[in-house]
Amino acid sequence: MNDYTKEIEKALRSYLPKGDGNTDTVINSMDYSLMAGGKRIRPTLAIEFALLCGGNINAVMPFACAVEMVHTYSLIHDDLPCMDNDDLRRGKPTNHKVYGEAAALLAGDGLLTLAFSVILGADAMERNGAEKCVSAAALLAECSGANGMIGGQIIDLESENKEISLNLLKIMDEKKTGALIKAACLLGCISAGADERQCKAAEKYADNIGLAFQIVDDILDASSDTETLGKPVGSDEENKKSTYVSLLGLDECVKISRQLTEEAITSLNEFEGDTSTLKQFAAYLRDRKK
Amino acid sequence: MNDYTKEIEKALRSYLPKGDGNTDTVINSMDYSLMAGGKRIRPTLAIEFALLCGGNINAVMPFACAVEMVHTYSLIHDDLPCMDNDDLRRGKPTNHKVYGEAAALLAGDGLLTLAFSVILGADAMERNGAEKCVSAAALLAECSGANGMIGGQIIDLESENKEISLNLLKIMDEKKTGALIKAACLLGCISAGADERQCKAAEKYADNIGLAFQIVDDILDASSDTETLGKPVGSDEENKKSTYVSLLGLDECVKISRQLTEEAITSLNEFEGDTSTLKQFAAYLRDRKK
Repeated sequence: MNDYTKEIEKALRSYLPKGDGNTDTVINSMDYSLMAGGKRIRPTLAIEFALLCGGNINAVMPFACAVEMVHTYSLIHDDLPCMDNDDLRRGKPTNHKVYGEAAALLAGDGLLTLAFSVILGADAMERNGAEKCVSAAALLAECSGANGMIGGQIIDLESENKEISLNLLKIMDEKKTGALIKAACLLGCISAGADERQCKAAEKYADNIGLAFQIVDDILDASSDTETLGKPVGSDEENKKSTYVSLLGLDECVKISRQLTEEAITSLNEFEGDTSTLKQFAAYLRDRKK
Repeated sequence: MNDYTKEIEKALRSYLPKGDGNTDTVINSMDYSLMAGGKRIRPTLAIEFALLCGGNINAVMPFACAVEMVHTYSLIHDDLPCMDNDDLRRGKPTNHKVYGEAAALLAGDGLLTLAFSVILGADAMERNGAEKCVSAAALLAECSGANGMIGGQIIDLESENKEISLNLLKIMDEKKTGALIKAACLLGCISAGADERQCKAAEKYADNIGLAFQIVDDILDASSDTETLGKPVGSDEENKKSTYVSLLGLDECVKISRQLTEEAITSLNEFEGDTSTLKQFAAYLRDRKK
């Protein structure tokens, strides 16, 4: 699999605001979570789809960074005491454990806002033009908003300590995790000027790996250990959350995650270019250990 | 003064997401704060500057609504227990008092995200075109982000329970309150296709009324009563915050707020159109009782 981590992290760093010396706390807090490593799945997907559809890495990079900023902000807010109240993220103390709740709240707000500064900024405009930037930013807002990721988070919140149906669990994950993965894939398509058929295939790929990704997350939470995973395991069971594992069992989950990965790989047949890296990426998401 | 409240609130309501029945809590929570009244100062400014520069109310309306959404999100997050921990806002219980902290957090996130959906949405694009929408959204992001409003909030947070200099207080307010007021005025200019001279004059007007607005806020907190103001008074003194009143005294603050208002009114001489409503608006901000 191609590894764009270095390029992505260089670009992410370049887009962090410099500040005027009075606002260092919030900028450092944004930096802390944005540069805390992670798999960079979403920006990688944006880059891969851009390349597959004839685009280039420079043009898609601001879009790729924007989606990673939205993802990072959602993690900071998700970890807050009034939400999941998590102390560890990627093996490190969560943002509010280091900077305090208020600065973590503002750092999340700052990263969400920065995503739109970057996706509409000078680099994005110069390399993609106004029409593509508007499409990209509007898509990112839609997928991140109350009908997308935030909608999934409220369902998640209201599902705590009670059993929910498999149907509602799927709706929740389509919004909470799936929407931003879909945004990532489509941002690549938009930057490359992909046609409708390509966008639909990208969406199908995203939907399948998105659901597989969430099922694998549940599998890991139920069967991994804290050291391997880099965060506490068993939190789903502890919080009495309905998960694919609790509703369908571990074996069935492994089976479904494989089926979804196969379907994702099949959807790539719509593309004429080299899809080997995206196929490997789907398999990697299925087989990951953290 | 022209009153566009009815038109603004109709448009704001039309832009709230409908949801699919699973996400009602966050949508209702967004609705609660967005439709809770308030003076609609920022959207009114956007409309007035658009009209002054030869634009029209339909074109600027999505921009005007976007800035009000950003303002509302900032109030919801500002009121949270980890920030100002306020129970009342505009005479009503604050968002988290009604919907809980987690839903209030998400409602704020949702409104910030929605602002970008609206400023780049179908209405905005149809009525303004892609170039103006990109300029408008990029400006809104810049003024709302870590170098703008959020930067002001972190300075505010770190200034609690200690004295700060008049210089830092001004920098804080320029960012915390001033940046979004400037965004509002300039969004009107952008929608109308104003020239650079007009934008500079609008910025000067915004800077002056922005600072005057904050000084008047401090005056009211120090000298009004809860019933008139619709929120608890004396909170600045209680929190040992440095304010213009604590640093300069009440009389000097009244004098300066008048000078700034005069300067704001003078800056309008750059425009050829009818500036009477914006002049009255500056005077209204100076003379308001809540």
